[in-house]
Amino acid sequence: MAHHVIIVAAGKGSRMGEALPKQFLELNGEPILLHTLRRFYTYDPSLHLIVVLHPDYVAFWNDLARTLRVDIPHRTVAGGAERFHSVRNGLQSIDDRDGIVAIHDGVRPLVSNATLQRCFEAAAQHGSAVPSLPVHESMRSVDAHGHNQAVDRSRYRLVQTPQCFQLNDLRSAFEQDYNDAFTDDASVWEHFGRAVHLVEGNQENLKITTPEDLKMAQALMAK
Amino acid sequence: MAHHVIIVAAGKGSRMGEALPKQFLELNGEPILLHTLRRFYTYDPSLHLIVVLHPDYVAFWNDLARTLRVDIPHRTVAGGAERFHSVRNGLQSIDDRDGIVAIHDGVRPLVSNATLQRCFEAAAQHGSAVPSLPVHESMRSVDAHGHNQAVDRSRYRLVQTPQCFQLNDLRSAFEQDYNDAFTDDASVWEHFGRAVHLVEGNQENLKITTPEDLKMAQALMAK
Repeated sequence: MAHHVIIVAAGKGSRMGEALPKQFLELNGEPILLHTLRRFYTYDPSLHLIVVLHPDYVAFWNDLARTLRVDIPHRTVAGGAERFHSVRNGLQSIDDRDGIVAIHDGVRPLVSNATLQRCFEAAAQHGSAVPSLPVHESMRSVDAHGHNQAVDRSRYRLVQTPQCFQLNDLRSAFEQDYNDAFTDDASVWEHFGRAVHLVEGNQENLKITTPEDLKMAQALMAK
Repeated sequence: MAHHVIIVAAGKGSRMGEALPKQFLELNGEPILLHTLRRFYTYDPSLHLIVVLHPDYVAFWNDLARTLRVDIPHRTVAGGAERFHSVRNGLQSIDDRDGIVAIHDGVRPLVSNATLQRCFEAAAQHGSAVPSLPVHESMRSVDAHGHNQAVDRSRYRLVQTPQCFQLNDLRSAFEQDYNDAFTDDASVWEHFGRAVHLVEGNQENLKITTPEDLKMAQALMAK
């Protein structure tokens, strides 16, 4: 039974203040996206890897992968308007019905083998698995009037990827209409009426969205 | 009117897996605590700096500061059982009634001048100022039964230090009995019936509590 990985790298954005979308920026000499691909390939070379890219960047990435002689087998799929549509396009490109599918942010190159193992194993057992971490900072809630108050941080978890699900059930969940509250795949799954099973993530598994994040990732990778 | 800074470095802990409390660990060749002191001194040399240390480490730090020829004027105060008691000891060591007091974690050496300026200015105007950041990860709440559900992360802020307050009002707030819900100084202030004014923090202002944090701080400091 094949397991699939949809790596979402469909941004065109320039939140990093760079011309190039952040998944293509260099981290220790290689594009971030290549590091991410290699993490999964190293964990299990039999995983079916799918990279979802902005339509403007599919040819760009395929050329870059050829130039860099990337020898990690993967397919590319064109993304949609929102992350939700990009994941849906990825799911529709998979022919299998059974197995697990992992949805992962292209800009999280530091997911650990231990996190991957926890996610795939728990998803096989519980139908879903989402890596998460406790909140280390104090937290406050804010309301529309600008008031804020302390909340008990032990009641919250920060969520990472890969978010793993039974493939066919997730495909059904993504037949729902798009909703602004879908900030990640777990929220789509939950809105479809399914329970989300949390597992432990790893602290280094940061999402690179700012120049500071890129510096931190470089430091963690040098370890 | 003098402004005071209480730097809380009263941990004995070994969460870092090191023999030495983390505030004394080396970051780019100097103890973390020294970097933290220097941030405030560089921002405004007229600030009155107070370092609260575990009773077992007061002499250790004073010796270390002498050995390293630390020329940043500061006082040391012995801490108490919990952070709350350490801050209270720091407050009781201040003779002034007026002015602003900033309470800062000793293991946050990367607070920016801009954050410091926002905090001191807003505290003078509003009575309190607490630096905070939006939540970038998806977030879920968890209950005692292990159930979890998506929450709207835009309704929450992660809180940093320095948390700044009108000195005499904060001293009154710290006359309250200790309460487990006091995870930071803002929660003490709020429990005393006062509104907390949030200002923008800076992303690099991380709290160094793990070896990964230390690596990230090194990378950010090298910038």
